[in-house]
Amino acid sequence: MKRMGLCIGLKAEAIEEYKRAHAAVWPEVLEVISRANIRNYSIFLREPENLLFAYWEYHGDDFASDAARMGESAAMRKWWELCDPMQQPLATRAQGEWWAAMEEVFHLD
Amino acid sequence: MKRMGLCIGLKAEAIEEYKRAHAAVWPEVLEVISRANIRNYSIFLREPENLLFAYWEYHGDDFASDAARMGESAAMRKWWELCDPMQQPLATRAQGEWWAAMEEVFHLD
Repeated sequence: MKRMGLCIGLKAEAIEEYKRAHAAVWPEVLEVISRANIRNYSIFLREPENLLFAYWEYHGDDFASDAARMGESAAMRKWWELCDPMQQPLATRAQGEWWAAMEEVFHLD
Repeated sequence: MKRMGLCIGLKAEAIEEYKRAHAAVWPEVLEVISRANIRNYSIFLREPENLLFAYWEYHGDDFASDAARMGESAAMRKWWELCDPMQQPLATRAQGEWWAAMEEVFHLD
């Protein structure tokens, strides 16, 4: 299992809509995430910096392939169409990233 | 169980020292954290924004009291004496906070 941390901005004017959407994520989207071997997935918001932090535990052995499969799901694409305009990706993200990867520097079970 | 997310800055000149320290946290400090009913605790770093994000799962029923007990430990105080000067707390943190609390807006098991 690999723990992953990801970071992105959230537009101030979209905060309430983002919270509402994430309080009731579509069941098809949750299924697609679970099928991608992602477990214990949380998103935290820090205001007023308006930063989102995502934490999950990846239980597969080929994240690139699981992520690609997620991206082929119609439900997931619709979900991203809804959410992406609310987000403000970090200018410093790596090529191909939307959410920017973070580095795990500590862990205690 | 309650999932908690916390955020703080890290001074650019301290990044390497912070990583080294956290690759080998003192066993007494790990014990104090565990006794405070904190489990599955990770810290992630985002460069070049130099932001730290902490995620843990709190299994007790009185976090304020567990946190106060942690702060009474000599090992923990020495650890904080080492780490606090490396960190740059958010100016917007609440009174009494060092790491700033975040709000959980999504969870999937």
